[in-house]
Amino acid sequence: MAPRSVAVIGASADPTKTAGRPVQYLRKHGFTGAIYPINPKVGEIDGLRCYPDVDSLPEVPDVGIVLLGAERAHLAVRDLAAKGAGAAIVLASGYTETGPEGARRQAELIEAAGDMRLLGPNTIGLVNLTDGIPLSASGALEMDKFPAGSIGVVSQSGGILGALLSRAAARGIGMSKLVSTSNEVDLDLADFIDYLADDEATKVIALYVESIRNPETFRRAALKAARAGKPVVAFKIGRSESGARAAVSHTGALAGADRMYDALFDQVGVIRAQSFADLLDIPAALSTGRKLAGKRIAILTSTGGAGTLVSDSLGVAGFETPAPDEETAEKLRAMQKGDHAALDRNPIDVTLAGLQPDLLRAAIRILLDSPSYDAVTVIVGSSSLAMPDLMANAIRDCLPTSAKPVIAYVSPHAPEVASLLNRCAVPAFSAPEACTVAFQAMLRSGSSNSAEDLGTEPKAAPKLDDFGSGSLDEAAGKALFGAFGVPVTRETVVKSPEEALAAARQFEGGVVLKILSGEITHKSDVGGVAVNVDPARIGERLVQMGDQVEQAVGTRPTRFLVQEMVKGGVEVILGMHRDPLGTGILLGMGGVAAELFEDTTLRLLPSGRGLSKTVALEMIRSLKTAPLLEGYRGRPRADVDALADAIVAFSGMVASLGEKLVEAEINPVFVLPEGRGVVAGDAVAVLGA
Amino acid sequence: MAPRSVAVIGASADPTKTAGRPVQYLRKHGFTGAIYPINPKVGEIDGLRCYPDVDSLPEVPDVGIVLLGAERAHLAVRDLAAKGAGAAIVLASGYTETGPEGARRQAELIEAAGDMRLLGPNTIGLVNLTDGIPLSASGALEMDKFPAGSIGVVSQSGGILGALLSRAAARGIGMSKLVSTSNEVDLDLADFIDYLADDEATKVIALYVESIRNPETFRRAALKAARAGKPVVAFKIGRSESGARAAVSHTGALAGADRMYDALFDQVGVIRAQSFADLLDIPAALSTGRKLAGKRIAILTSTGGAGTLVSDSLGVAGFETPAPDEETAEKLRAMQKGDHAALDRNPIDVTLAGLQPDLLRAAIRILLDSPSYDAVTVIVGSSSLAMPDLMANAIRDCLPTSAKPVIAYVSPHAPEVASLLNRCAVPAFSAPEACTVAFQAMLRSGSSNSAEDLGTEPKAAPKLDDFGSGSLDEAAGKALFGAFGVPVTRETVVKSPEEALAAARQFEGGVVLKILSGEITHKSDVGGVAVNVDPARIGERLVQMGDQVEQAVGTRPTRFLVQEMVKGGVEVILGMHRDPLGTGILLGMGGVAAELFEDTTLRLLPSGRGLSKTVALEMIRSLKTAPLLEGYRGRPRADVDALADAIVAFSGMVASLGEKLVEAEINPVFVLPEGRGVVAGDAVAVLGA
Repeated sequence: MAPRSVAVIGASADPTKTAGRPVQYLRKHGFTGAIYPINPKVGEIDGLRCYPDVDSLPEVPDVGIVLLGAERAHLAVRDLAAKGAGAAIVLASGYTETGPEGARRQAELIEAAGDMRLLGPNTIGLVNLTDGIPLSASGALEMDKFPAGSIGVVSQSGGILGALLSRAAARGIGMSKLVSTSNEVDLDLADFIDYLADDEATKVIALYVESIRNPETFRRAALKAARAGKPVVAFKIGRSESGARAAVSHTGALAGADRMYDALFDQVGVIRAQSFADLLDIPAALSTGRKLAGKRIAILTSTGGAGTLVSDSLGVAGFETPAPDEETAEKLRAMQKGDHAALDRNPIDVTLAGLQPDLLRAAIRILLDSPSYDAVTVIVGSSSLAMPDLMANAIRDCLPTSAKPVIAYVSPHAPEVASLLNRCAVPAFSAPEACTVAFQAMLRSGSSNSAEDLGTEPKAAPKLDDFGSGSLDEAAGKALFGAFGVPVTRETVVKSPEEALAAARQFEGGVVLKILSGEITHKSDVGGVAVNVDPARIGERLVQMGDQVEQAVGTRPTRFLVQEMVKGGVEVILGMHRDPLGTGILLGMGGVAAELFEDTTLRLLPSGRGLSKTVALEMIRSLKTAPLLEGYRGRPRADVDALADAIVAFSGMVASLGEKLVEAEINPVFVLPEGRGVVAGDAVAVLGA
Repeated sequence: MAPRSVAVIGASADPTKTAGRPVQYLRKHGFTGAIYPINPKVGEIDGLRCYPDVDSLPEVPDVGIVLLGAERAHLAVRDLAAKGAGAAIVLASGYTETGPEGARRQAELIEAAGDMRLLGPNTIGLVNLTDGIPLSASGALEMDKFPAGSIGVVSQSGGILGALLSRAAARGIGMSKLVSTSNEVDLDLADFIDYLADDEATKVIALYVESIRNPETFRRAALKAARAGKPVVAFKIGRSESGARAAVSHTGALAGADRMYDALFDQVGVIRAQSFADLLDIPAALSTGRKLAGKRIAILTSTGGAGTLVSDSLGVAGFETPAPDEETAEKLRAMQKGDHAALDRNPIDVTLAGLQPDLLRAAIRILLDSPSYDAVTVIVGSSSLAMPDLMANAIRDCLPTSAKPVIAYVSPHAPEVASLLNRCAVPAFSAPEACTVAFQAMLRSGSSNSAEDLGTEPKAAPKLDDFGSGSLDEAAGKALFGAFGVPVTRETVVKSPEEALAAARQFEGGVVLKILSGEITHKSDVGGVAVNVDPARIGERLVQMGDQVEQAVGTRPTRFLVQEMVKGGVEVILGMHRDPLGTGILLGMGGVAAELFEDTTLRLLPSGRGLSKTVALEMIRSLKTAPLLEGYRGRPRADVDALADAIVAFSGMVASLGEKLVEAEINPVFVLPEGRGVVAGDAVAVLGA
């Protein structure tokens, strides 16, 4: 990140070519170390001596920027490694992203690097604004100046890095370091998060994520940043991709790839940016270090309309904009001799303050002092365009008097004012919705708990030999789940009408009769389930079911399950889903309406461990239909505690069995009234070979 | 809108004062008619002769801009009216928005205007960019030039008008006319929509709405604009206000004020902008006149990342970004001799085209020609910053070859490029989400049906004398609903155990027993409902219910209802809600889960008429849980047709009874399996005195 010497392999003397940029940018943005252009065909570039190859350099370079194409880049990398350079940055594209031939080249590149660290390939490089060191060919560096600041950026796309760099600079938002990791053959997202968590100049980390290749290192790095008090904000694409795959259980379809990312981000404290603009707006707000302690926002305006716009957007998100308390209103009145000022409402309209910086300064101080408000939004109208710096300074002067957040909404097109404000640590936005997003992030960082949930040590697995492999039938599945502490229905496996009769007599009242089969998982679709069967008539019903199923699937079932009939519970679904990001545990409300709304929640397992009960309870509470479990409209309260225990037990099983367990789902889990526990009414389990 | 002469009453010779602006702006932006400053204390303003009062003007001015304060503005208005001026624009604030004293002033102002048209008060005026006539004091007019275009703006806030004007100008988005209506004592939102619907220069109408004071004229004006093929886009604040009020029915709480606006906008074809930025972005897209015929978008990019960003945003909204068909890919390949170009995917990466306008032009034409795409998005990267006009012209040149939409996403901060593109009718956005919103609007305008739904003529009201007034009991409510064609349960009113027994014997199987009371509407909360009662034991149950209710509310019920027991239906709720915007009919799914998700839909009655069956069927289909009525998961299909008939009948009743009907709700309506109709299981009705 802070090399003292840089070799630029394949540097061009033509500044209009991409290969001509890095040397040019290093000099333009004030790099003070040694620059070694390498190009056998040129003697000098921009007054710098040009070397024919890496070997002939007068010293070992800290880093080499490789501008050669994919056909030759690995040669330069090999030379740099041989010379003992610290790292290489490879800009060329044409690797795995293009197909098998590219994949071969990428392997060659990795081999050439050996122990030397490698950034890229297919990267635009990195930019260290703290120390003025651009190791990049990004066209965004054509701009003359960039405000240095405290936002560190890691982007899996070089183009996006350039866009963020130029947009931030135009708005006066300062950044510390920007890195594009792209193909990530060595250095990846997690490495740089880890670095930035230690970097003194960085206070907030912004990520542009296409795909997390190593979830475990990402998790550790994100948690390290959280412990260091540095919020991480991520914008992740791929939201429209379906994570569904052909699966026996429903869970696979419900737990899409993007929801797994949501769960991962949430569990390691990463704030997910919902729009691309949020990826700059949220870090800009958080880089002030100011935290929002509550939801009451004062809006100070000197122009009609814009204050209402911000207040409306805040209101939709659940923020409050209360009128000033009597004392605060009195102070405002005393400050301003005006007549038409509306001081009994919020937005607080101090017309004159828009034109007089002293009044503005006084008004902001009064509002920051007020116990009625947790933060202040200043509306910047067109009247301030005539004296942008007086305005910006007036707002800035108020910052030391309070730790409460102060942000600005700029109503007209006024990029200079916005830039001035951002530079003096007053986040300035031109979208009312951005003010809301900023406050939401500041509220979250004000209340966030960076403690990692370590989960629960799972029970040891029982001997799986007894279970065989493949899709287990319901009885075997329940035996497996039961071994890990998940309560299941009482039931008996029977093969004849006589056995069925004997089994049914064990239970009071009606029973459930089901076919037992590892192949047929949707039993009710083929007539293989009967509920509330009179024990006296169970033999007859068994024969009839055999006929029906034989007609539907062609083979006569030989084994059946006689099961207790569970009444009066709320039905939920509990399942697991594995994808490259990890293993997710999914809880969903049962019943057709909740199904149509896909009312489900997902958490990833901490590596090798089950979910903790705290997380299990959080999952239950986060369902939109949670009130159905909590005694909604006079219903009995359901046994939420027992459900949480079942989630812990189920997730412990999933952790304990690891990859051996391919699929697992309970649909439904009956959650009985408080004190009566839960019981698994069915079981899907697929074991690997 | 296009006066030949303008009087400016209270004009100041000091250009830094608000009162100094209008004359200054009229001259600066090229007004060619007569300007008459009026100020008894000044002889001349900016070289123009100044008149002491309106009466001394050499001619009758077409319009007078009144810059005096609220204390004296009515005097100037009176003078203008006496002189015979066409209209007055009153900028002063201090009217109804400030309290009773202001309301008195406002009445005085209205009286002073007489038959003369009045804009304001509390307005920033209007700006006619088509003809270069600014009748406004908006500070936004400090800018030197505004691109004239085809977007007409009507804003209920002057500050917002200024913000839109300056933001649009900075982006190269052209507008035709902008008006701030504010207090709307005479000319209002609807008047200007009506005007703009006829205005040749206007193709799209953008509205900033705080509150619609006259829904009927708004509806007519919006439908007129729709007939003229001019899309209307509205941003409406007040979204967080609760429309709930104390009401007997649930409907009031479910049909908030903002949902009534949603319904109104939807029914008259107004596109509701979801964010403030959309209020410029959508009109910018629609002003091209290009309509989107399908959902397949080609993304042409020469920079990594940005294309994916746009594609991801489109994907989330259900758009498709298919790879080029073989023929199109072949043409692209033939055009470009490049090596790394990825032509088998979308975003289509034509690296060289980013640097060579001719290639860009050719590539866009190929994509517009392709039968695989309905529109093209061009990603503008940092490489185009060096030659913005060549780039913009290359894109513009492609427009005449196709009627398909072409938009641009500008990835780096590059306001000049964006402005150039917008000026040559290529809507350019810097947020990927804005591209999506633009296409959504273009798709809607490509498929929109501007035919007004005229509703259904309601049945004549029965004699209401029989029903009395106040809250009707269930039997009376059902008799009322039944008279309008809503099917209700069969039932008998009884007063004694003996009568109950006789009544219950009329029905097969169990019956429902309820107390009958106009006061107690939540009967089940006080133990006043019993279902599936054995007819043989109904007398006993009636006595028991009497005891229970007496204990709960203090008085013993004297009348009961014996009702058929309805089995096997899907329960929905049907209600009405009146507010200043009109009368809404609300349909919602019953059942606790659907209730928790507030799965309801709302339509406003066409004035004086019930809903049409087409609209009723649309309402049913628009419920998220509609599948529950359509045979979800092997359930019987419900009688959707009969439900639509019931909605039409219920809405006809609401229309027919008008204000006399204060509240009405059926909760639940049982929707029986197909062919078996629907039946109202309860009835709430409140009649006015």
